[in-house]
Amino acid sequence: MRDHSGYIEKDRHEAMQDVLDAWEFERGVETVEVPDALGRVAAADVVSKNTLPNKLTSNMDGIAVNFDAFEGGAPDTSAWVRGSDWQFCNTGIGMPGDFDTAIPIEWVEVSADDEHVVLNRLPEHRGNATTPVGANLQKGDVLVRAGDTLTPALLGVLNMGGHVQVDVVKRPVVAFIPTGNELVDAGKRLAKGKNVESNAVMVCAKLQQWGAEPLRYPIVPDNWKKLEKALLDAAEKADIVVINAGSSKGSDDFTCEILQEHGRMFHHMLAQGPGRHCSAAMLGATPVIGISGPPMGAEFTTDWMVKPLVDRYLGLSGAYPPMVFAQMDFAPDFWPEPVQVVKRGVVYRDEDDRLHARLLPMDGRPVLRTLDQANCFITFGRGVERWQAGDIHPVELRWPYVID
Amino acid sequence: MRDHSGYIEKDRHEAMQDVLDAWEFERGVETVEVPDALGRVAAADVVSKNTLPNKLTSNMDGIAVNFDAFEGGAPDTSAWVRGSDWQFCNTGIGMPGDFDTAIPIEWVEVSADDEHVVLNRLPEHRGNATTPVGANLQKGDVLVRAGDTLTPALLGVLNMGGHVQVDVVKRPVVAFIPTGNELVDAGKRLAKGKNVESNAVMVCAKLQQWGAEPLRYPIVPDNWKKLEKALLDAAEKADIVVINAGSSKGSDDFTCEILQEHGRMFHHMLAQGPGRHCSAAMLGATPVIGISGPPMGAEFTTDWMVKPLVDRYLGLSGAYPPMVFAQMDFAPDFWPEPVQVVKRGVVYRDEDDRLHARLLPMDGRPVLRTLDQANCFITFGRGVERWQAGDIHPVELRWPYVID
Repeated sequence: MRDHSGYIEKDRHEAMQDVLDAWEFERGVETVEVPDALGRVAAADVVSKNTLPNKLTSNMDGIAVNFDAFEGGAPDTSAWVRGSDWQFCNTGIGMPGDFDTAIPIEWVEVSADDEHVVLNRLPEHRGNATTPVGANLQKGDVLVRAGDTLTPALLGVLNMGGHVQVDVVKRPVVAFIPTGNELVDAGKRLAKGKNVESNAVMVCAKLQQWGAEPLRYPIVPDNWKKLEKALLDAAEKADIVVINAGSSKGSDDFTCEILQEHGRMFHHMLAQGPGRHCSAAMLGATPVIGISGPPMGAEFTTDWMVKPLVDRYLGLSGAYPPMVFAQMDFAPDFWPEPVQVVKRGVVYRDEDDRLHARLLPMDGRPVLRTLDQANCFITFGRGVERWQAGDIHPVELRWPYVID
Repeated sequence: MRDHSGYIEKDRHEAMQDVLDAWEFERGVETVEVPDALGRVAAADVVSKNTLPNKLTSNMDGIAVNFDAFEGGAPDTSAWVRGSDWQFCNTGIGMPGDFDTAIPIEWVEVSADDEHVVLNRLPEHRGNATTPVGANLQKGDVLVRAGDTLTPALLGVLNMGGHVQVDVVKRPVVAFIPTGNELVDAGKRLAKGKNVESNAVMVCAKLQQWGAEPLRYPIVPDNWKKLEKALLDAAEKADIVVINAGSSKGSDDFTCEILQEHGRMFHHMLAQGPGRHCSAAMLGATPVIGISGPPMGAEFTTDWMVKPLVDRYLGLSGAYPPMVFAQMDFAPDFWPEPVQVVKRGVVYRDEDDRLHARLLPMDGRPVLRTLDQANCFITFGRGVERWQAGDIHPVELRWPYVID
């Protein structure tokens, strides 16, 4: 029997901070086409190459005139010649010739041959219904700032400013290594006692949503040499490595021992469940997070331990989950010691716009199907003040941090 | 001069409802690989092909025993033989042989040769620390329901249930046709009086976010034949068509007239600004939304008139924007008649968790850069009850409906 007595157990917030403190990396930058930059993070400030409008522009469909003709009051337009005294002008288009004032078409009667006009209302000032040069954008204006997440509107702004490409932060490559003799790929025949590997697709989809690039490894059996090879390969190729299961104390759990041999172990366990068997280590310069095997634990620990690393790489400030104070709809009926237990909850708003928190049942098959209904974590046990029903108590919002 | 006196002006909510009421379509379905299904909408209920666990499974790292040995109290384990009296068992793995009970490794002293055990604590019941067959999933359990948006957790659930492919609603193809003689593609030389076409990238990015498939057309000049060709082609190829500008009354605005000739016009204008020159028509069975040219109007009208169509196609209930009651931080200093004016606002939460609404300045260059700071629309004018500072008043949340 191997000795696990030296295993380090940590609170998950402390555990995450240790990894963030130790992780040093060079943030990659790449140039992408603007239409491909949706959701990417700008790597540098971008300023406009254009001034818009670049000519006095009509902001109405109507006719363009010269305001000089109106200085003495209503002019006689019967002899006006189209082209020299007036011309049609259209919204968003530079004024024809040197005309300096626009009259909305609703104020004008135009002859059947489009050559003569009668004015029913006069422009009030020079520049009426026009937009001056540079009103919308000036060369040198900041279009996006380093660290901005590029939204549809910001992509439009980049185009306006004359940019068809933009420098963005490289997506961190995150390796995902599923391990375990009991695992079989989804869709393959499942012998008795075997289980489906279903965490890869879930974790890789999360990584995509968070702006990382998943690098999915095939299932690695519980074999020291094969695990060692996969881990060293992943630490070389990826910015962050996630290894799924094997952090526990089972007879075939080698993950922590391999990490200890080749790298620096931060912790072997979290002081709570689900997700208790979640480890962290540094293999060379690459953080390696061992997430627990059962899907619920895998889901929680990926959010807790991997998202802050992706956020840190991208320069986003997502490392600390937001807490809200809510009125608790229930009192705890158990109190775990010495670890904490984290349960899924729902924060909602009552008619008086007051926040409440309730538990989401942990049962229901498959449990992950109901997981998406939770928008918060409620923590029970060590270090938490025990509450009564009706008390105001802090709960932790769960990404994407939305309260309906 | 062409006659625009018959132009129909409508409130935007009424305008949208008219299009939704008239639109009949066949929702497409396609089969995709599970890892590619993130964010897609399930087209049908999917049930599990698997029962999990498919064998009594240990939920601890420890040893497997037969509870019969404990019926008479603490057994003498000194003569126990590994393999017949006990065996190692590991989390998530089917119990070895016919053993029915697990003992956590923390309760066990294992000899150096891994062949003998001493128990410091006894299992309390048959099945201790195990998970029965089918506890996590049973064949026939519903994994996802028709209409579910597929999240990372649901992709995992599909895999668990033995599915590697899933039927999803086809992304509606949405054509985007930018029009106008004044427009030049971003990055090209901009002659005086010309403007950059920057709406395509913005609108297409929105479509992507909403789950549609954009079909981007090149800039079409203000030429009847070319516009007619582009519109008829797009109505044939796409589920929804967005034509940008040309819905107004300018001398080169042919969009509405072409739509009138070939289809059925719902309205030519919205009774508000920005986005006043926004039209809707049915060309054959395809809805055609004319969005206004200036980027702010284009941004607003795409959200107002195009997103509900995409949502309807996908079967999502996003057609009606949610309203919230907020305490208004300001009184209006103008009141437009007969149209409405919509301004960008921010709904925020004060220390007492009370919702407030304030205006976001409309200036600042480029104005779309500041647009993303708005999370609501505040409407002034016809049909709206005028408020005083401090009044509670309804405001409309702006997608993605997040209040910080």
